[in-house]
Amino acid sequence: MRAARMYGYHQPWRLEEVPVPEIGADDVLVKVAATGICRSDFQLADGYFEDAVPQHFPITPGHEIAGHVARVGVAVPGAAGLSDGDMVVVDPSWGDGTCRQCHEGNEQLCTGDGGWVGFGPPGGFAEYLAVHYRHLIGIPASSGQRPEYFAPLTDAGLTTYRAMKKLQAAGKLGPGRAVAVSGIGGLGGYAVQYAKLLGGGATVVGFDRADDKLAVARDHGADYVINTRDKTAREVGDELAMRTGRDNVDAVLDCTGALESLQLGAALLAPEGALVQVGLMGTRVELPLFPFVGGERSYTGSFWGNYNDLTEVLALADAGMIKHSITTLRLDDINDGVDALGRGDVVGRQVVVFA
Amino acid sequence: MRAARMYGYHQPWRLEEVPVPEIGADDVLVKVAATGICRSDFQLADGYFEDAVPQHFPITPGHEIAGHVARVGVAVPGAAGLSDGDMVVVDPSWGDGTCRQCHEGNEQLCTGDGGWVGFGPPGGFAEYLAVHYRHLIGIPASSGQRPEYFAPLTDAGLTTYRAMKKLQAAGKLGPGRAVAVSGIGGLGGYAVQYAKLLGGGATVVGFDRADDKLAVARDHGADYVINTRDKTAREVGDELAMRTGRDNVDAVLDCTGALESLQLGAALLAPEGALVQVGLMGTRVELPLFPFVGGERSYTGSFWGNYNDLTEVLALADAGMIKHSITTLRLDDINDGVDALGRGDVVGRQVVVFA
Amino acid sequence: MRAARMYGYHQPWRLEEVPVPEIGADDVLVKVAATGICRSDFQLADGYFEDAVPQHFPITPGHEIAGHVARVGVAVPGAAGLSDGDMVVVDPSWGDGTCRQCHEGNEQLCTGDGGWVGFGPPGGFAEYLAVHYRHLIGIPASSGQRPEYFAPLTDAGLTTYRAMKKLQAAGKLGPGRAVAVSGIGGLGGYAVQYAKLLGGGATVVGFDRADDKLAVARDHGADYVINTRDKTAREVGDELAMRTGRDNVDAVLDCTGALESLQLGAALLAPEGALVQVGLMGTRVELPLFPFVGGERSYTGSFWGNYNDLTEVLALADAGMIKHSITTLRLDDINDGVDALGRGDVVGRQVVVFA
Amino acid sequence: MRAARMYGYHQPWRLEEVPVPEIGADDVLVKVAATGICRSDFQLADGYFEDAVPQHFPITPGHEIAGHVARVGVAVPGAAGLSDGDMVVVDPSWGDGTCRQCHEGNEQLCTGDGGWVGFGPPGGFAEYLAVHYRHLIGIPASSGQRPEYFAPLTDAGLTTYRAMKKLQAAGKLGPGRAVAVSGIGGLGGYAVQYAKLLGGGATVVGFDRADDKLAVARDHGADYVINTRDKTAREVGDELAMRTGRDNVDAVLDCTGALESLQLGAALLAPEGALVQVGLMGTRVELPLFPFVGGERSYTGSFWGNYNDLTEVLALADAGMIKHSITTLRLDDINDGVDALGRGDVVGRQVVVFA
Repeated sequence: MRAARMYGYHQPWRLEEVPVPEIGADDVLVKVAATGICRSDFQLADGYFEDAVPQHFPITPGHEIAGHVARVGVAVPGAAGLSDGDMVVVDPSWGDGTCRQCHEGNEQLCTGDGGWVGFGPPGGFAEYLAVHYRHLIGIPASSGQRPEYFAPLTDAGLTTYRAMKKLQAAGKLGPGRAVAVSGIGGLGGYAVQYAKLLGGGATVVGFDRADDKLAVARDHGADYVINTRDKTAREVGDELAMRTGRDNVDAVLDCTGALESLQLGAALLAPEGALVQVGLMGTRVELPLFPFVGGERSYTGSFWGNYNDLTEVLALADAGMIKHSITTLRLDDINDGVDALGRGDVVGRQVVVFA
Repeated sequence: MRAARMYGYHQPWRLEEVPVPEIGADDVLVKVAATGICRSDFQLADGYFEDAVPQHFPITPGHEIAGHVARVGVAVPGAAGLSDGDMVVVDPSWGDGTCRQCHEGNEQLCTGDGGWVGFGPPGGFAEYLAVHYRHLIGIPASSGQRPEYFAPLTDAGLTTYRAMKKLQAAGKLGPGRAVAVSGIGGLGGYAVQYAKLLGGGATVVGFDRADDKLAVARDHGADYVINTRDKTAREVGDELAMRTGRDNVDAVLDCTGALESLQLGAALLAPEGALVQVGLMGTRVELPLFPFVGGERSYTGSFWGNYNDLTEVLALADAGMIKHSITTLRLDDINDGVDALGRGDVVGRQVVVFA
Repeated sequence: MRAARMYGYHQPWRLEEVPVPEIGADDVLVKVAATGICRSDFQLADGYFEDAVPQHFPITPGHEIAGHVARVGVAVPGAAGLSDGDMVVVDPSWGDGTCRQCHEGNEQLCTGDGGWVGFGPPGGFAEYLAVHYRHLIGIPASSGQRPEYFAPLTDAGLTTYRAMKKLQAAGKLGPGRAVAVSGIGGLGGYAVQYAKLLGGGATVVGFDRADDKLAVARDHGADYVINTRDKTAREVGDELAMRTGRDNVDAVLDCTGALESLQLGAALLAPEGALVQVGLMGTRVELPLFPFVGGERSYTGSFWGNYNDLTEVLALADAGMIKHSITTLRLDDINDGVDALGRGDVVGRQVVVFA
Repeated sequence: MRAARMYGYHQPWRLEEVPVPEIGADDVLVKVAATGICRSDFQLADGYFEDAVPQHFPITPGHEIAGHVARVGVAVPGAAGLSDGDMVVVDPSWGDGTCRQCHEGNEQLCTGDGGWVGFGPPGGFAEYLAVHYRHLIGIPASSGQRPEYFAPLTDAGLTTYRAMKKLQAAGKLGPGRAVAVSGIGGLGGYAVQYAKLLGGGATVVGFDRADDKLAVARDHGADYVINTRDKTAREVGDELAMRTGRDNVDAVLDCTGALESLQLGAALLAPEGALVQVGLMGTRVELPLFPFVGGERSYTGSFWGNYNDLTEVLALADAGMIKHSITTLRLDDINDGVDALGRGDVVGRQVVVFA
């Protein structure tokens, strides 16, 4: 089969012929139909994770994967409900089940020897893939959606969902509450939609420094948008007040990870407000001590998502409730796709589709 | 001023001239604009609460109240934001602040000497009312809604909101989950709407034994409805499976309080499912031991709602997101209205409006 | 190796020579050191689970298992930290990882094809056992406790722990609160200890109808005990008030499953009180509708425990913080042990120890 | 009556004769028995709160107050259970009931016109005090404790209790978990005790830079203590590992508010770990972005405590479960007491007692 393989940092991936993987008794052979190119694929190629997630090359990247069942291992239980030809989506976090996080279902936080598909275990930029049945989610045959629609939801669309659920579970959404999504790029576009879907009537505000991004926020359901470029927190608060009647918000989902964006979010939090963070750009967070203590504010990180989170995202997707703009390309063009992401040239999500 | 006063059980209320109430330093005099007639007003007249909530007659009933500020007590803080002429809604549960429940904000559960307006403290079937400022919620001047639209939301529309929030907070709603509302009468019509507003994409199913009620459920957003008359739980489960792909639900909000309805709801709960109960009709609940233990199911009662719950309901209402059908009548006709409720002749909500 | 095998209901188990099990790549071969005899072993022999958990005979029962690592499968990750000779305890619930419950770590509630060791998968009444590494918990070499001390904690000592954690998580324990443990038998003896350990200063009361059981409750730390035989709920409430200053409790952990015990517990619940149920004896629960709705009381089942729950129990045990009385016997005498349990002749926990 | 009154910043308080306060219908006149001198009293005198909480002088400070009922207002409900001579403790946060925080019982976070006794409303450095009945907590006549034992628990002993409850509610305590208390001064001494009382068996570690403070931590139940002076986070982690077997902790309660202490705490957090902050010393918090996102760590402020929190602290105190060292002085010596606090000369808690 054909696979895109990475032999080192800062070099193009090689398109090679490799054997179709053997599957173990608990595994399913998946014929890949669509694999999204994620910003983290560019970061992987660029050496960004060199220290945090060291690799033994060559590897096959690709972690946003949808496909079809090609063969089912002999020990896969009937309850998995998997048969040849079924459409499946790959749950990307493959914990090893030795730590507390795995045993509460948060395999993406595994502190044992677990990993993530495409960051060690062979990923989806290849025609076939072996996956333990525990990490597959079947898509109903009745679904009208295509594999390339589902693929990007396993990372960007999942990360923001989990983060918004944290804000909901913390009681910060609901009627009369206000939530801001900061940064309307690859993550924020989903976050705005989840703010509407999970917000129970909360006012949703989009922050960005570019008007075209804000237009996306509005298109995805934001009640208000504010261009924050060159504005102080006070000025943004005044704009908020003018539009929503309040100069603060109960919740912020920061999708940038940039220091200034985090500081803006922290400054606009109401008493008991919560700031949840998913973006990774800067390296530190700086918060004002007094308001956080005196007003019992909180700051919490959120990372990717677990299996059940993903089933929920796919339920929304299957109902056609998530909008995103997909560009398809062929495996032969993968290096172009990754490079374009690095240059910031990509609008919407790129997905490699297989014949 | 004119007031409808109750002098005993099983007798018409008397329309009398009584003095406008004096207000204390912390009180606000409210000129009543609209007061809903609730099923519990009929029950009050009918002696249903004779033991549970004994009365010293005469009393002035009426607990679903909207009006305007007529005078503000001298000690009412500026932060209350109340001025003459402002539209206000009355938070009906007046705890005395001596118990744990009051100190967590759940005054409707007060175990001290607290009460509920219209069940002791003079209520809203009168032209004026004295209310401690803590129990008033201002409606923004910008609101396009009229007082009679808000009044019934302080009981039926509040009780079901709190109950649905319990299901949401318990993690039983969300994408891919299913929730049933059992009984589509005065309570269930709101419950279906909240299931959609708070459900985050959960499938919403309405159960009733009358097709016209089920039509209301559908009109209020239910994804599916099932007429449960003369059907076993197994049969209802089969219908569920046919329509939703699952023969059970993660959550049930029972709005009837009838034994059979509760048993049906319990029988259809998925593992870890939650049954929340608001209706009061029968006197007991019977649950099967094994499924509740082996599947960690739960049964929880929910009662009316607190101040913050009500602010959330009013935020939805102010945004026009709650549908109900209002019939207005005059204070002179109140006995007709209460009698009609007792006969079950009323469609929608009756509200007494004042000139 | 020797094993006790069950060939049908209502007949003695046969002591037989069977092959040592093969292990798969992910498995660990455990040399059994100690296996507790649980009341559910008697129930299994007695046909109690015939319908709920049908069996293909012969089977090897035994689900309360501690032992030592005899061989480690080739694919067991280093992070599992398992080496030959290590003492291990077996997590008994072996879900199949296909359902929502498994993916949140609650494999004991698996609705796929999962099972429980000793109720299908060969159990601990045998010299060796194959266990997937995910279901082993290592005991530190520094531990001063012996395997027979740990074995019974995997069921009775785990079930009550999970249930008490539910009460704690629901906010019903803590200083100034009161919790009752109803039924001080094999389960209740642990429950009282957890009420003290997790209660944060809550008053702990033991209910039973036998004074010798109440003596155990007191020995395990109960602040007060009440013999409930032939008493009405009102009378028990009066005794409570005399001793604790309150005639109700915030939380009840019912360890009996008997209808009257559940009714007593429900009757004594304070407003917002929670009744959690673990015992299985009767078949139904009957609750009064008005107090559950009007006081927002709740009833919740709790079943066994998950892997993380068990690690927590073992952490307490390793610190010597759990008291129980152990009687050891040899595998040859297992039928005597099971019979004695059936007759109710056993004081403390019986554990089969292997040479 | 005599009162200590403050006429401005940076000047001694004046001991004056002022009228006994009038009480309103809802008020109780309290004869003060004991009022603690808090570090925030020194900060008040020193101008620390000049901007945050502006004052109209003269004021009577004192917010840690215990006393006896001298007269009960005519409208105080019987359910308050207050009679002449009863011992009472004053709940110090007097919200105005106009905001969401007040209506959920968190009056200490009031964003309306509320205040705190002794920071505006006349406080406890006076012989008498008027208190709304909502803000009094009765001490049972059976209590063997004296007023001066209770007084300091209304601030330092309350703040740390609420913070530790947050860690417990977040699921970070319990058997097998580890919690660090950073800074063993006036706050940390209580925090260590609550870590044991609420920790459910968690390992409790005390951090400080002074050995005498660490001796207090050990005396109050800390399992281990580490002197962190001039040590890197790595070095502290190594010491932790040597003593507890783990180089990180699940929870940190920071009682200092100093930047380095917060950074140490953040660096030692396990994945999913929570850092709760009560101390106010520095002005900002700096956290590393990657570990907080990738490990879903959290940082949360906690402020003082609410009425129900205080009832729980008093329940522990009434049972003699809280240790602290009290020094009593007379009102005439109050300026000496405040000055000594400013110099850092005070060991234990100073309490002004009245004849």
